[in-house]
Amino acid sequence: MERRDGRRPDQIRPVRIVPNVLDYAEGSCIIECGRTRVLCAASVEDRQPPFLRGTESGWVTAEYAMLPRSTHTRTPREVERGRPTGRTQEIQRLIGRALRGVVDLELLGPRTITIDCDVLQADGGTRTASITGGYVALALAIGRLVEQGAIPHVLRGQVAAVSVGIVGGVPMVDLCYEEDAAAEVDCNIVMTSGGEFVEVQGTAERKPFTRQELESMLALAEAGIAELLAAQRAALGIQA
Amino acid sequence: MERRDGRRPDQIRPVRIVPNVLDYAEGSCIIECGRTRVLCAASVEDRQPPFLRGTESGWVTAEYAMLPRSTHTRTPREVERGRPTGRTQEIQRLIGRALRGVVDLELLGPRTITIDCDVLQADGGTRTASITGGYVALALAIGRLVEQGAIPHVLRGQVAAVSVGIVGGVPMVDLCYEEDAAAEVDCNIVMTSGGEFVEVQGTAERKPFTRQELESMLALAEAGIAELLAAQRAALGIQA
Amino acid sequence: MERRDGRRPDQIRPVRIVPNVLDYAEGSCIIECGRTRVLCAASVEDRQPPFLRGTESGWVTAEYAMLPRSTHTRTPREVERGRPTGRTQEIQRLIGRALRGVVDLELLGPRTITIDCDVLQADGGTRTASITGGYVALALAIGRLVEQGAIPHVLRGQVAAVSVGIVGGVPMVDLCYEEDAAAEVDCNIVMTSGGEFVEVQGTAERKPFTRQELESMLALAEAGIAELLAAQRAALGIQA
Amino acid sequence: MERRDGRRPDQIRPVRIVPNVLDYAEGSCIIECGRTRVLCAASVEDRQPPFLRGTESGWVTAEYAMLPRSTHTRTPREVERGRPTGRTQEIQRLIGRALRGVVDLELLGPRTITIDCDVLQADGGTRTASITGGYVALALAIGRLVEQGAIPHVLRGQVAAVSVGIVGGVPMVDLCYEEDAAAEVDCNIVMTSGGEFVEVQGTAERKPFTRQELESMLALAEAGIAELLAAQRAALGIQA
Amino acid sequence: MERRDGRRPDQIRPVRIVPNVLDYAEGSCIIECGRTRVLCAASVEDRQPPFLRGTESGWVTAEYAMLPRSTHTRTPREVERGRPTGRTQEIQRLIGRALRGVVDLELLGPRTITIDCDVLQADGGTRTASITGGYVALALAIGRLVEQGAIPHVLRGQVAAVSVGIVGGVPMVDLCYEEDAAAEVDCNIVMTSGGEFVEVQGTAERKPFTRQELESMLALAEAGIAELLAAQRAALGIQA
Amino acid sequence: MERRDGRRPDQIRPVRIVPNVLDYAEGSCIIECGRTRVLCAASVEDRQPPFLRGTESGWVTAEYAMLPRSTHTRTPREVERGRPTGRTQEIQRLIGRALRGVVDLELLGPRTITIDCDVLQADGGTRTASITGGYVALALAIGRLVEQGAIPHVLRGQVAAVSVGIVGGVPMVDLCYEEDAAAEVDCNIVMTSGGEFVEVQGTAERKPFTRQELESMLALAEAGIAELLAAQRAALGIQA
Repeated sequence: MERRDGRRPDQIRPVRIVPNVLDYAEGSCIIECGRTRVLCAASVEDRQPPFLRGTESGWVTAEYAMLPRSTHTRTPREVERGRPTGRTQEIQRLIGRALRGVVDLELLGPRTITIDCDVLQADGGTRTASITGGYVALALAIGRLVEQGAIPHVLRGQVAAVSVGIVGGVPMVDLCYEEDAAAEVDCNIVMTSGGEFVEVQGTAERKPFTRQELESMLALAEAGIAELLAAQRAALGIQA
Repeated sequence: MERRDGRRPDQIRPVRIVPNVLDYAEGSCIIECGRTRVLCAASVEDRQPPFLRGTESGWVTAEYAMLPRSTHTRTPREVERGRPTGRTQEIQRLIGRALRGVVDLELLGPRTITIDCDVLQADGGTRTASITGGYVALALAIGRLVEQGAIPHVLRGQVAAVSVGIVGGVPMVDLCYEEDAAAEVDCNIVMTSGGEFVEVQGTAERKPFTRQELESMLALAEAGIAELLAAQRAALGIQA
Repeated sequence: MERRDGRRPDQIRPVRIVPNVLDYAEGSCIIECGRTRVLCAASVEDRQPPFLRGTESGWVTAEYAMLPRSTHTRTPREVERGRPTGRTQEIQRLIGRALRGVVDLELLGPRTITIDCDVLQADGGTRTASITGGYVALALAIGRLVEQGAIPHVLRGQVAAVSVGIVGGVPMVDLCYEEDAAAEVDCNIVMTSGGEFVEVQGTAERKPFTRQELESMLALAEAGIAELLAAQRAALGIQA
Repeated sequence: MERRDGRRPDQIRPVRIVPNVLDYAEGSCIIECGRTRVLCAASVEDRQPPFLRGTESGWVTAEYAMLPRSTHTRTPREVERGRPTGRTQEIQRLIGRALRGVVDLELLGPRTITIDCDVLQADGGTRTASITGGYVALALAIGRLVEQGAIPHVLRGQVAAVSVGIVGGVPMVDLCYEEDAAAEVDCNIVMTSGGEFVEVQGTAERKPFTRQELESMLALAEAGIAELLAAQRAALGIQA
Repeated sequence: MERRDGRRPDQIRPVRIVPNVLDYAEGSCIIECGRTRVLCAASVEDRQPPFLRGTESGWVTAEYAMLPRSTHTRTPREVERGRPTGRTQEIQRLIGRALRGVVDLELLGPRTITIDCDVLQADGGTRTASITGGYVALALAIGRLVEQGAIPHVLRGQVAAVSVGIVGGVPMVDLCYEEDAAAEVDCNIVMTSGGEFVEVQGTAERKPFTRQELESMLALAEAGIAELLAAQRAALGIQA
Repeated sequence: MERRDGRRPDQIRPVRIVPNVLDYAEGSCIIECGRTRVLCAASVEDRQPPFLRGTESGWVTAEYAMLPRSTHTRTPREVERGRPTGRTQEIQRLIGRALRGVVDLELLGPRTITIDCDVLQADGGTRTASITGGYVALALAIGRLVEQGAIPHVLRGQVAAVSVGIVGGVPMVDLCYEEDAAAEVDCNIVMTSGGEFVEVQGTAERKPFTRQELESMLALAEAGIAELLAAQRAALGIQA
């Protein structure tokens, strides 16, 4: 079976990660997965969120937004309705949890690193691209802190994410917008370079799925994420 | 291994579903899972959400809130901060998706059924209890519409949900608040009476989890959900 | 003259107060006045509101909300419009003033007691039921503080409330929703067990009322409140 | 007994009503009660509020605000906190109800008259001055509609309001700010020129009040309101 | 050429400034420019805005609002939409900058002076009238502080403002509402008594303007502002 | 005199405009002025703003936002405070007015073109860069409509903008962030390719400015804008 853009079901879109695209941010990159394009910027601040007061621990959090014309037709800015949508909040909570999954927050010390993921163009998979690119921005910012001697190595590994789903009865990886809109099942999988899961989020959009379909999707995700982890290393100049 | 309240890892809390607790709602119940207690009310309205205009389809949606003193110490009302938290929005989206998973929306016709899940007391698992109890309120409301001859049978089966997690290295089902707060991994699983998944949401809170750990949790969830589906049938007076 | 539900004009609806319905709240009850049902919960916190900083005084405040399906047809949640309605704010200010009317705030010390009144079902008189039930939750919470030796006796008496009105030219007590909607005059009266007034709020909804009509309504209220005070004592296990 | 400003307990402050102070409003006045000064403007619009759609009835509503430097020290604008306070909403609901009490809304036809009461200077009694002055603005606007032949006579009489209270154990009328702040009991009374009540709002601020104290306050209010009704007639050029 | 109200293009409207119209404000006036009427009140507070913490400097800021019936037809209050419009914010930023232009903020010391400009009636030029009148309120408040010996002389001169524009091809000064609505070009000019500019804001509403047209407008503004500066001195009792 | 970055006072920063950077927007570009970088996207929609209903006219509007890490240190998103700041609203009103200054809105027909200007990196002059780049996005979108035969030529010329100011007593053009922060006077000038002004906004930040200083700044702006107009033509592939 061939997909709209000629890919095989187990084939992710071309991925490109350009690091250090901003002059002021402590870490940054643009990640492109097909036509999806996200600007990720890491900001290091010497402050703790209120719930960590009294501890020595740090925090990693994320914010996510889509530029109004990242989409096929213009989407109004969320500031105009006065608050982030439920979808936006759900996504930024997901990105934050995924990145915290590979950081030793105690060693990070009383700092907050905020990863801003701003979607310049959206063709499906913006939340998984934000995690994969967000990791690169985070690693660059942490690398700089380590170089400055401010902190020890605090990263326990890499983390990356991909979408998988069932479209027309066929499990496939890295759905573009059209595939996503037509999918019966939609999953977002976040894994570490250690091969373990940080998040498994599977949702039946049109029909419930079986245990075996879940297994197929997990296998596709594992393979796709391996490629994304390699792209991260390439962008960071790390040898496998 | 024994849990704080004496349960085995594979044992859910005592569940009790009292149907028809409200005089005006088209369907309602109170569900108790241990000390967690949720009031679920179904409201049928002859209107469509804007995005369905021009179709003949109906919609099922859910709202979720915690009463301020459902918690150990008082939690301020969300209306005071002017908007639902990200957590609340995430939960109400989850409940809505889960319930829609067993309803034929086209057959429902141009109606909206809103399931209000108000947590009277919270001891962990409020979102899964809301789904399990919300199904009962929904089924009662739909039963009434069917009796009135307004619609045909639109339910494709039952849906129920349970939490599973890994606490102290041990996979266990139906976490109470204390267990949830200490869990390394936290999953919410939604399944139909047909044995299929509607949602699989697994999150590594403290450490990533392996494929095998995921399998153990899914098995625990399946068994727990079978008991909840039976409790739903008992509350609805349906023979297995 | 007989009322819709067979009551005499001077007869209140059956009242039932179930204390201690919540596990975590310092005081709680469910009060039922006919089909009106309110969950009242008292929360004690060791903090002062900002305007009492620098004093040794405490505070008693109330919050009020109607669950969306407490009403005949579903009422949207106030959080969705971003702020409490004027009606809600007016009611919670009234409940707070009424309860403060029988508490010695100086003796209470630097604490805030919040009474949450959540209407589970609404058939008229929800604000007066909230005051009458709120007193029980408050007394239970204060009783616990006194038992712990944290404070001396700070209650100066009981407080309860009832609605009175003129419907079809006839003064009557404890209006249900239908009577309230049809009333020419609508009053809410709050009195102490000492027979004094804390609030007298009379409003001409359809036609102005005379001094003599006001007198009739006050007399009806006095008798009705006497019964409610007795119901409070029964719920609290106090002998008359 | 003499009051701070030399008045007797039964003496209202000097009242002055200057009609037609605005060029564009359909009716307007400035009312001064001592140092309290309120600008009242009536606006007639050919639209109905949503809840009257489908009827032929009109509506009268009021809005109330205090200019930031109407007070002894500056009060922040409510627009800065994003919404009217509970106090403001309570007051504007009161003014609206009071004015509607003397208007035949069916005869008014499908129109909305909005009475804006903006407090230029506040020394107690701003809500009652708003009602008394608001009536004058309303009567001027209605007079103009009658003159144009647009509507028949729709006013059933005059309406005015005054505060009464108990200060240092003494019932007194028309409290200034200092008296109001020290009062044990605070009442706002709204009466028609027919000698009937539209609103009786009595609140025990510091100690409950007896039936006899209520009677004394009602008598004081009746006499004070008679003077205010005369001042309205003078401003409107009506002979008694 | 003659204007609608008979003025010559270079003629401002009759200006009248009544100082000290409020009892509590540290400085106040009502300024009338034709039918435009603004109440200006200065409030002195012993606090610094957050961004000046750690300095000895003071601040002057302004707030601006239109009463709902200042306009030909009623304009809804901004509090009802939850926030000031962009127009309002732009105007209050302009007034604040203009007034700060003649105050030595360091000498003012750790104080904030807020100038509230509330438009009682609007017939064009409300922002420039607010600046001209706001200066008088500010000078009165500062005069009082100087008299009390709290601060040295901190005013570096006077500041006043006027609108100029091109209407029907003709440059003219001090536009009334109808002229403003028809103008091709609309400018607001703020100048000091030293003959220098604090703000030059020229906007092509209908067609771009040439360098020469700008020069004509600046000349008209200079002459008009000279008259307004004289009116300020008269109101303040200062000899030229 | 030489500036921080070696420029002469009359020298603008290197400007680079890359057109068509987005796949979905009807027109787009990235404009770089030194380190300032803005993504401009034009969206064409077949709808009119409410105030044009009943006419055949179209509208051009703009929205402006800074990405959180466009700045030296991270700036919180405006959506988090629930509304655009006054500064943002002022800027988007300015951009909209500037662009409308060269469009024949009647010929545009019942359409709205929205220009989104999102600042990727900010080093001063973001509002003027947004106008200059916004024009390119607008012209591309209009060019496409003209090609499709949907509208005639509706552009009356080009429009571009630059900042000028007085820093250390020296008038200079195209201020970077550091210069802007230190400027005594700050102006934003918008001009057409016809050599006429659309906006002249001059503000004395630290000291008032003379007529002659204004003239110097206008001359610098004219020369700078000529270069920017040429850069626009190059980006659009138009011969001079």
